[in-house]
Amino acid sequence: MEKIFSYQQLFYFTKSVFLKMGCREREADIAAKNLLVADMRGIDSHGVARLSGYVRLWEVGRINAKADIRVIHETPSTAVVDGDAGLGLVVAPFAMNIAIKKANEVGSGWVSVQNSNHFGIAGQYAMMGLDKDMIGIAMTNASALVAPTFSKEKMLGTNPIAVAVPAGEQPPFVADFATTTAANGKLEILQRKNQPVPTGWVQNKDGDSSYDAHELKNGGALLPLGSDREHSSHKGYMLGSIVDIFSGVLSGANFGPWVPPFPAYVPMPENLPGKGIGHFFGAMRIDAFGTAADFKKNMDQWINRFRNAQSISEKQPVLVPGDPERLIEEERSQKGIPIIEEVETDLRNLAKKLSLSL
Amino acid sequence: MEKIFSYQQLFYFTKSVFLKMGCREREADIAAKNLLVADMRGIDSHGVARLSGYVRLWEVGRINAKADIRVIHETPSTAVVDGDAGLGLVVAPFAMNIAIKKANEVGSGWVSVQNSNHFGIAGQYAMMGLDKDMIGIAMTNASALVAPTFSKEKMLGTNPIAVAVPAGEQPPFVADFATTTAANGKLEILQRKNQPVPTGWVQNKDGDSSYDAHELKNGGALLPLGSDREHSSHKGYMLGSIVDIFSGVLSGANFGPWVPPFPAYVPMPENLPGKGIGHFFGAMRIDAFGTAADFKKNMDQWINRFRNAQSISEKQPVLVPGDPERLIEEERSQKGIPIIEEVETDLRNLAKKLSLSL
Repeated sequence: MEKIFSYQQLFYFTKSVFLKMGCREREADIAAKNLLVADMRGIDSHGVARLSGYVRLWEVGRINAKADIRVIHETPSTAVVDGDAGLGLVVAPFAMNIAIKKANEVGSGWVSVQNSNHFGIAGQYAMMGLDKDMIGIAMTNASALVAPTFSKEKMLGTNPIAVAVPAGEQPPFVADFATTTAANGKLEILQRKNQPVPTGWVQNKDGDSSYDAHELKNGGALLPLGSDREHSSHKGYMLGSIVDIFSGVLSGANFGPWVPPFPAYVPMPENLPGKGIGHFFGAMRIDAFGTAADFKKNMDQWINRFRNAQSISEKQPVLVPGDPERLIEEERSQKGIPIIEEVETDLRNLAKKLSLSL
Repeated sequence: MEKIFSYQQLFYFTKSVFLKMGCREREADIAAKNLLVADMRGIDSHGVARLSGYVRLWEVGRINAKADIRVIHETPSTAVVDGDAGLGLVVAPFAMNIAIKKANEVGSGWVSVQNSNHFGIAGQYAMMGLDKDMIGIAMTNASALVAPTFSKEKMLGTNPIAVAVPAGEQPPFVADFATTTAANGKLEILQRKNQPVPTGWVQNKDGDSSYDAHELKNGGALLPLGSDREHSSHKGYMLGSIVDIFSGVLSGANFGPWVPPFPAYVPMPENLPGKGIGHFFGAMRIDAFGTAADFKKNMDQWINRFRNAQSISEKQPVLVPGDPERLIEEERSQKGIPIIEEVETDLRNLAKKLSLSL
């Protein structure tokens, strides 16, 4: 059961929730916009479905609604941002804007972030450079749900990577993906339906392959992209590690199994080596590598050629990264955002608790 | 059947082959060293096994032994290098050195390369920043062997990514991997043995799953990391695309299905949009993001924690990226490099053709 909500309705509600948490007007606005990008682009697990989770983190003191976000180290092309335990939805665009500023000045900008929180989907920050003719890069670490190859233990988050590349007449190339075989959101859908998961998505507490969507609650783990050794799970493990090192180790945030959990009821890891969770952002001006016109012409040709690659089935053309999310965004801009019953209930309970109306 | 060769013997022979091609002394030296890194680190498919392939490319005029490698565009943190159709083994370290120089000056350096050729393994260039306390990044596009998700057509190369990260007391973290499920080298081993390949490595000309190691000769393709849609092959496709765009589109090299093939007998694609093959390199000073001492302490903790993660089997501990190659390198430094009979025959034929002794 789904119900359609207008963007405005969800935006107004989300913003008023952030205001109730004590966010400043402008930051509540930014946070609401950035959370809703996920709902607009069809990544329903990362949008308003998580709003009550942010509130619970604020209630237990893990989110600082009035954060003093600032640069604590920099060179002409790099910086470290301290998010002061603020909302990742506000810290992330602050940091990406610094990467963009530095790219304007010296060709590229690279910003690692400590002391932040969950930032929604990665793609939207990578996309912030598009209208400035920049390639954007965004990644984040997250609490450990993923077992490296040969490991029983969960050591890495789903650690997504996003890369957005401007084109000329074509819509941009936007890749945005978790470094696991299955996104946690897809697992959650099967959990709700009580359906088995495909082989290669999760392992049980002993490290054996499992079909149980609830395995993570019983000591199991998500598997890195590649699933098993024979299909190169070590490559997904390496990718997730790179994201963790760039986001966590480089910035002075937590890393590996010490990254703070999103659910407020999960206790914090002990002996933290850093502060909060970490992100990493990059921006490269396309005219720092030649003329922007040449780049756009070639990128149009790239996109055209890939979209017209001979497909296996006539029913399913080859896609260019960003195509599916853009189509959903176009549809939802027209028709509104479908919200499943469980999430609607969660939002209504939240409205009640905070004396707001949905 | 294998025979052990000393490093010196293979180095001397390889260097004399490059000298016969007309390389300058210093560049023959660099090229031989960089080719042999693959043999030393156990990536046997990319070392002297390819030497006669380089010679054939030179014979048909696709490799320029006296290339005038130069920077054709730059900003303080970025550059484009034109490899002048030179050996990738010489062009790549030239470009990585520029990335390192720029990192020294402004915190990070990013160099995209056009008009190059096959550069051996990616990892060694990423590792060039390690003793300068820099994180190094290296990637390259390659001729199309890989079908994107839903595609019958081969559109991308195995497009590897390498990231090397310095530590303190621990050996460095070195990730170096093709963005496919199976490395082409592993496929070649099964081809020689006439053995079937695991499901998820290749598809046949119709896009169906195949067990035939020879499928690529019959219009089949390698599969992106993830293997199939259910196991997120679109993520491997996105990764390979990012490598292609950074290496090919950004530099003005060829991209996608237009990347020139390594085997000299394979005709060049038509209507090339760029020049040669493309690479992309990055260097980031760790002290551009805080103190080097803090970074190294945290990186040591990262490495220690992951290496000591609880493993599924007592016989197989959890590995840190770079561990397997480093162990092989230590062993081969002591005992020499094992060369299989087929490669030895190939080298002896090459020696005869060029009037050299192996």
